[in-house]
Amino acid sequence: MPTYKAPVDDALFLMNDVFHLDRYGNLPGFADASPDIVEAVLREAAKFSEAVLTPLNRAGDVEGCTRRDDGNVATPTGFKDAYRQVAEGGWIGISVPAEFGGQGLPAMLTIQVNEFLCSANMAFAMYPGLTQGAIAALVVHASPELKQKYLPKMVEGVWTGTMNLTEPHCGTDLGLLRTKAVKQPDGSYKITGTKIFISAGEHDLAENIIHLVLARIEGAPAGTKGISLFVVPKFMVLEGGKLGPRNGVSCGSIEEKMGIHGNATCVMNYDGATGWLIGEENRGLNAMFVMMNEARLGVGVQGLALSEVAYQNAAIYAKERLQGRAISGVKYPDKPADPIVVHPDVRRNLMNIRAFNEAARALVMWTALKADIAHRSEDEKERQSADDHMGLLTPVIKGVLTDTGFANTVMAQQVFGGHGYIAEHGMEQFVRDARIAQIYEGANGIQALDLVGRKLGRDGGRAMMAFFNEVSAYIKEKSADEKMKPYVAPLGVALGHLQQASMWFMQNALGRPDNAGAGSYDYMHLFGLVALGYMWCRIAEAALAKLPKANGSAPRMNAKLTTARFFMERMLPETASHLARIQTGAGSMMELPDEAF
Amino acid sequence: MPTYKAPVDDALFLMNDVFHLDRYGNLPGFADASPDIVEAVLREAAKFSEAVLTPLNRAGDVEGCTRRDDGNVATPTGFKDAYRQVAEGGWIGISVPAEFGGQGLPAMLTIQVNEFLCSANMAFAMYPGLTQGAIAALVVHASPELKQKYLPKMVEGVWTGTMNLTEPHCGTDLGLLRTKAVKQPDGSYKITGTKIFISAGEHDLAENIIHLVLARIEGAPAGTKGISLFVVPKFMVLEGGKLGPRNGVSCGSIEEKMGIHGNATCVMNYDGATGWLIGEENRGLNAMFVMMNEARLGVGVQGLALSEVAYQNAAIYAKERLQGRAISGVKYPDKPADPIVVHPDVRRNLMNIRAFNEAARALVMWTALKADIAHRSEDEKERQSADDHMGLLTPVIKGVLTDTGFANTVMAQQVFGGHGYIAEHGMEQFVRDARIAQIYEGANGIQALDLVGRKLGRDGGRAMMAFFNEVSAYIKEKSADEKMKPYVAPLGVALGHLQQASMWFMQNALGRPDNAGAGSYDYMHLFGLVALGYMWCRIAEAALAKLPKANGSAPRMNAKLTTARFFMERMLPETASHLARIQTGAGSMMELPDEAF
Repeated sequence: MPTYKAPVDDALFLMNDVFHLDRYGNLPGFADASPDIVEAVLREAAKFSEAVLTPLNRAGDVEGCTRRDDGNVATPTGFKDAYRQVAEGGWIGISVPAEFGGQGLPAMLTIQVNEFLCSANMAFAMYPGLTQGAIAALVVHASPELKQKYLPKMVEGVWTGTMNLTEPHCGTDLGLLRTKAVKQPDGSYKITGTKIFISAGEHDLAENIIHLVLARIEGAPAGTKGISLFVVPKFMVLEGGKLGPRNGVSCGSIEEKMGIHGNATCVMNYDGATGWLIGEENRGLNAMFVMMNEARLGVGVQGLALSEVAYQNAAIYAKERLQGRAISGVKYPDKPADPIVVHPDVRRNLMNIRAFNEAARALVMWTALKADIAHRSEDEKERQSADDHMGLLTPVIKGVLTDTGFANTVMAQQVFGGHGYIAEHGMEQFVRDARIAQIYEGANGIQALDLVGRKLGRDGGRAMMAFFNEVSAYIKEKSADEKMKPYVAPLGVALGHLQQASMWFMQNALGRPDNAGAGSYDYMHLFGLVALGYMWCRIAEAALAKLPKANGSAPRMNAKLTTARFFMERMLPETASHLARIQTGAGSMMELPDEAF
Repeated sequence: MPTYKAPVDDALFLMNDVFHLDRYGNLPGFADASPDIVEAVLREAAKFSEAVLTPLNRAGDVEGCTRRDDGNVATPTGFKDAYRQVAEGGWIGISVPAEFGGQGLPAMLTIQVNEFLCSANMAFAMYPGLTQGAIAALVVHASPELKQKYLPKMVEGVWTGTMNLTEPHCGTDLGLLRTKAVKQPDGSYKITGTKIFISAGEHDLAENIIHLVLARIEGAPAGTKGISLFVVPKFMVLEGGKLGPRNGVSCGSIEEKMGIHGNATCVMNYDGATGWLIGEENRGLNAMFVMMNEARLGVGVQGLALSEVAYQNAAIYAKERLQGRAISGVKYPDKPADPIVVHPDVRRNLMNIRAFNEAARALVMWTALKADIAHRSEDEKERQSADDHMGLLTPVIKGVLTDTGFANTVMAQQVFGGHGYIAEHGMEQFVRDARIAQIYEGANGIQALDLVGRKLGRDGGRAMMAFFNEVSAYIKEKSADEKMKPYVAPLGVALGHLQQASMWFMQNALGRPDNAGAGSYDYMHLFGLVALGYMWCRIAEAALAKLPKANGSAPRMNAKLTTARFFMERMLPETASHLARIQTGAGSMMELPDEAF
């Protein structure tokens, strides 16, 4: 059985020493996030994740969800009670405004808590996670009446939320969407159509399920400009908040899938279900995008979360499993063999994973802080620049953290040898669970296109330039510092590669868009490496500052410096390969006729 | 349901146009392998794989194997009948000497047939595959009596074989092995101990199962020098070949695992089972290595096989699934959307996979040809040089083909978007099945160590130098040819990287072995890229030669040239990253104290 210990100290180090949460006291809600409140919240979330959710993870995978003949879906044993604890603990609404029952604390705290929940039990964590996404969309776009009607119960955890986009013939290309909405005299709509791959679409954890549904109003324009967003409750909500009769929406079946068995992936049938418009007619994608950005950041966190828990278990195994002797000479002569952690190739796996995890956590936290600023700052310029950062980094975080997170679960599994392939050790579940994060919320190829095709050039490249400027100013500032050189010098090289790649697109992709498409995936990963490298510099800086007064944490700070060097020596230089591939353009990639495949 | 079409034409192109099978008529058995015999064998194997094995693949995954209370194991529905057809078709003994009932045809033919079987149904193909491995060990090391007793029935397919190495506390480090063998007055041994992860250890496909078992004879030296190899039949074999009573070996349980559910992975309990020594006492590892080399090549083929079938299904899906429009302009205006094969990032996945598959198939075939020469040539020097090649390339093929094969199943799954995560499409099964190949028969980290620690320096680096000389002579020869330049010029760069890396080890690893361990994995992949790049040059050369008279095959030959260029532009340059990582040495990788993990 896998174990998990939430990295609370690491999260606190990032919040306090790297990102200096205390400097943002002017933002609403941040004053309430004093260091001891933050620590208390994280320690509580850690305890719950470790003690309650971790033991349910493998059992939930084995048992899975079951759809009964009446269309109801049973979640695995123990999920219901655990969900009740999530609701009672107030975990869903940590960062929701107080007027809807939340605590108004910074979003970065929610996102850190979600990492813990997700490491412990990804399939479970999706239920509250999707609810948070739906809440975000309602908060921004719904009318005051709809907010009043739905938000408090969702924040309380009595009701959950979903998002319904995909249809059988329509995934990425939402313009093909067919689900229909017909306006009723009372202002509501009748929704009819079939949605697939709806996570948490039906279950037994909550009294009601609030579906956010994309549909096309009768007579709306074709394509993406004729799509509207609706709220469709499973049970009608009567005056005073009481539940009424079932609405015309039901779960037709649940999918057999590779992983996240504890989460019901539903085919949802809308059969004249009653729904209410969120935001404006035909502006549904716009409203949905709010939810999608939050969701994509959350999916990036899933990649990190599984990488983290897989790492922890691989590290434990590597220190316990005795096999062979160190090639540099016997290390544990009193044992029949050395623990495999002495072998360089085992360390290569472990170092690769931890060098990703710590920087990825920083990148998520940095971006979550920007989300807080974008939503809460009173300074418009500050809001805009934070929003630019969010838009630019969201596809990078989603794509890179889930690709690397998945690869890391595979590496961690490899440390177990044959035992990693056996279900009872739980390592193969991490691999199967992590895999979905590369696919849903926009497959990673779409993230890459979003980055290169939309985000780079937006507003004359403002967001991109701001990112480049920040990183290069940092490099310049720290270059004089001998102790920081081993970190900022390689980052300078990597940033140069990223800038060259960006320039190459400007010069070669306008006339031939395939040149952008062909390089987009490499560009996303090149960008990710630079962003992670920058995070390692910031971490190293904080660790160096802390060391003289570190006392007990000195070994941890020194380990960070070694890991930062490992990243700079062995992971960051991959930027050169990405650049080289980008610069080959679309040529041989696009040359074959379709029928040659 | 996934489909499969065996790449017979490609295999024939490699055999006839690239490796010129007709030039080896002097080797025993090769004269019988006339072009039409070879084609007939391959077409028959293709038909069987496509029509019989493919439909059983997903059903076998869902149903899995079941151990009954009496210790017997039932394989999935249909496996028994399919196995009977394998036996009756003579597929197991294609390359076994005629004196044991085989057909004596080249091993390269068996290996190509095995690719087809494995693409169609990996879990099934392991049953005959493991039998072939056991046959190989018996042919080389067993006494004439044991050969006579066991080989004909195994070749006939009436009995199957297994290999029993791993114990709960002992995987890679066979020196820790505890299973005991006690000599009996009649010359047999009583074997006692527990073996785990025994593929095909128990099943209902054959009348008898012949286990090859590593054990330690009472009083033998500790460590790997006290290990002997035994043959232990499930049922005793009486005079005249009739089956006698059950031997003291039984299946204690079967493992729940990530994939290959159709193959029973058994815990085997040896409880005073009767066995007979194969080869000399305490020289068991030596005997086992024969089997291991064959097995490792076979596992490399599994990586290729799953990459191939995953590619085929992804290509079909990419041409059928309509979603979005080409960024370079609408390609199929009569359809509601373009098929996703028009999108560069989808092509990136497809091109990456096919650029690997075709070269990997060539590399396997080249090495299988060397195996034939090593076993059959009458020229000692030729045998030695072929054996050198085998020893050097086996870990590269095992490690690189399974790593890349797995990564390719993931890429192919990605082409399906959300549908790839759903079991019914079968793509996620390819991922789960392919994963084991990176682990068993020596985890890939062990392959890398075998390559760098044993194979490179052996006999003064003779094998390595021969490989370098062949490739560099080829580059030199072809450099003058304008048409070959786009292929050999990049290969020259890559070979330079490989030579620099080898040099770096010589200069830096003797004094500090961790420097070799830290770079071994990158070195294995660097070596693999150079070998695959060399194969692409050979393929391109043959395609260019064929083009003027190609007629109907011209589009196929042109596609090979484009794919070769893709490999050179986008995959081969990764050698630079591998070299850079190797040259950073063990530093930051080995710096952390064990307890920091």
